[in-house]
Amino acid sequence: MSVAEQIRTIAAEARQASFAMAKLSSAVKNELLLDMAQGLVNNAEEIIAENKKDLAAGKERGLSSAMLDRLMLNEARIKGMADAIREVAALPDPVGEVTGMWKRPNDLMVGKMRIPLGVIGIIYESRPNVTSDAAALCLKSGNAVVLRGGSEAIHSNLAIATVLKGELAKRNIPAAALSLIPFTEREGVTEMLKQEEFIDVIIPRGGESLIRFVVENSKIPVIKHYKGVCHIFVDASADFEMAREIIINAKVQRPGVCNALETLLIHKDIAESFVPFIYEALDAQKVEIRGDETFRSFAPQAVPATEEDWYAEYLELILAARVVDGLDAAIDHINRYCSLHTESIITGDYGNAQRFIREVNSGVVMVNASTRFSDGNQLGLGAEIGISTTKLHSFGPMGLTDLTTTKFIVYGAGQVRP
Amino acid sequence: MSVAEQIRTIAAEARQASFAMAKLSSAVKNELLLDMAQGLVNNAEEIIAENKKDLAAGKERGLSSAMLDRLMLNEARIKGMADAIREVAALPDPVGEVTGMWKRPNDLMVGKMRIPLGVIGIIYESRPNVTSDAAALCLKSGNAVVLRGGSEAIHSNLAIATVLKGELAKRNIPAAALSLIPFTEREGVTEMLKQEEFIDVIIPRGGESLIRFVVENSKIPVIKHYKGVCHIFVDASADFEMAREIIINAKVQRPGVCNALETLLIHKDIAESFVPFIYEALDAQKVEIRGDETFRSFAPQAVPATEEDWYAEYLELILAARVVDGLDAAIDHINRYCSLHTESIITGDYGNAQRFIREVNSGVVMVNASTRFSDGNQLGLGAEIGISTTKLHSFGPMGLTDLTTTKFIVYGAGQVRP
Repeated sequence: MSVAEQIRTIAAEARQASFAMAKLSSAVKNELLLDMAQGLVNNAEEIIAENKKDLAAGKERGLSSAMLDRLMLNEARIKGMADAIREVAALPDPVGEVTGMWKRPNDLMVGKMRIPLGVIGIIYESRPNVTSDAAALCLKSGNAVVLRGGSEAIHSNLAIATVLKGELAKRNIPAAALSLIPFTEREGVTEMLKQEEFIDVIIPRGGESLIRFVVENSKIPVIKHYKGVCHIFVDASADFEMAREIIINAKVQRPGVCNALETLLIHKDIAESFVPFIYEALDAQKVEIRGDETFRSFAPQAVPATEEDWYAEYLELILAARVVDGLDAAIDHINRYCSLHTESIITGDYGNAQRFIREVNSGVVMVNASTRFSDGNQLGLGAEIGISTTKLHSFGPMGLTDLTTTKFIVYGAGQVRP
Repeated sequence: MSVAEQIRTIAAEARQASFAMAKLSSAVKNELLLDMAQGLVNNAEEIIAENKKDLAAGKERGLSSAMLDRLMLNEARIKGMADAIREVAALPDPVGEVTGMWKRPNDLMVGKMRIPLGVIGIIYESRPNVTSDAAALCLKSGNAVVLRGGSEAIHSNLAIATVLKGELAKRNIPAAALSLIPFTEREGVTEMLKQEEFIDVIIPRGGESLIRFVVENSKIPVIKHYKGVCHIFVDASADFEMAREIIINAKVQRPGVCNALETLLIHKDIAESFVPFIYEALDAQKVEIRGDETFRSFAPQAVPATEEDWYAEYLELILAARVVDGLDAAIDHINRYCSLHTESIITGDYGNAQRFIREVNSGVVMVNASTRFSDGNQLGLGAEIGISTTKLHSFGPMGLTDLTTTKFIVYGAGQVRP
């Protein structure tokens, strides 16, 4: 069979297995996940041996030491993967939840019930722990899953998937409920993206170029997030100390992630005092600030900002900063430049807080809190399968519930339509 | 400007207008809709004059009398369109609803709030009332809308849209919140489908060929429904009279619609008595029955069914019928051949009713009720914008809520991430 035919077979078998997955009780799914966790621990030695092959190949291909570190598995990391699966097992099962029920004038009882999406495709890069994390979330929510990891981790991913699949067999669940595409060629991705008959949604996890490739080549709907250009607006009534703590946390605590702060907006009425205050604090943290003209009039050492800076996701210790006329101007700036990820206002004004919450339509909108909380775990979803910055199906951090949909259920007593 | 440039401008202005739409209060939106309804009635004469141009062109192009009737507007039909807008005005506004809120261990309050999707594109055929129906639903849910109707109704649609837009201006709402693509060439559709930067979702309303064209050419997510191959399974414990009433209603009351019955499955234990009983009842209603071998052993007059019949959406007085071994076989048949639209079980058995509800994952799953209830109005959603037979975002009949998404809202008091 050609690669294309084999991938079509994998997808078709996943669809068939999804019917069995959808019927499993929460108890069986939880036992399955706990066994998978234990299976990883029990087979750590073999997984590490396969991982060594990837590391050797990676060194030969000249991967950076940071990349090699992300790829590397040891006993502690495998235990971490097992713990992550156990956390998913402990989460409530969304499947079967009736989200509402009502009675029609003809006595029909109509409700909506959560069901799995069906077959979920995950396309990801480098870190082998995504194999077990994503599998656990998809299976717990009653879906079948088709995984396609990066070529640099192929031996590790296959070893992990083999252990997890072994646990399916023990419970008579079709092995096709969890598949890993074994081909490292790009064709492995492009063929997978053509299986719209069998795969319901694709969730890519990785850099912007991977995500663009997936979006451009997929016939299957994609839930995606390109980047996070997160804003903080410091209102005229902001507490300066609170603003400083939040801004430093949002920019400095972990600058390389999508919920880090990228653009700071400051109300003009406080610019004269707040700009030097925050410039000094950020400078002490070695943050380079690129300010607009007004900002630089109060902090002349700042680098001049250009139009591109308002669009930039720096992912390093650089911050764009602009003085704005007020809340309306801040919201206009955000609407124009934001990536629909996360925005926060620092304010003591009740009305402005409520307007910001209502009128800024990003995936996560905050008052007096660090953008770094924009994360499934931090917001209380439990584990996170990804973040969506498009509004269809899911918006913002996604948890187990986002891997389900609702069907209408109707209980009748012989009703017909007049 | 070229057609492509003009359509890009329309879409870009709609995006800009969507920010204003998202902020409107329910009261203002309701007043707007009531004025739009009255505007249609007040301008009926002009709309009818424009409609006559479409009818004349349609006759010249040789449209069937059924097509011409669907196209035709008179005072009564315009009053009906106005009433439909008033019904939408009376529905609860989904925007701003907080669907849940919880407190995190660090005292952050985290919730989810309904917001509009943004800009909705509707692509539809022939009936001019879709122009006002779709516009009312999109605007009520705080979205901007870009409409593209069929070329055969272009004068009618433009006249209706002009009246509706006039009411936007009176309330200082940007006119671009409601646009109708004025080009009748196919390019009008293909260019619209490229505006993924400005349009959030496309909802096509029309025949399967229109929908396939939209899906194949769209860079924007499409919420769609190809067809309705609806099933009824008559369980061994079914009440024969109830089964007959429901089956006749589902097949005969309006055979040309997507929620009409297309395949009947019958439990083998009652086949000997039920098959002749239902054959006679359907035959009296002039329904042609295409049965499998077992069915025909009890009703030899039936036409032999072929494999294609199990996939068929007849949309006329033809019914496929098959005798199955029991509930599992019925569910297997449905999983294999259904279009994820609507399926119903007729049963007196509690356990089988619950299993059918749980295990059949179509958009609408019923017990002891006619598939003809699978409709937004009948299920209690108020007006319906369409039906989705794919699971992402919406599944089954779609109402106002399906034109919204949820964002996370976070109320803090200075929290930072440790």
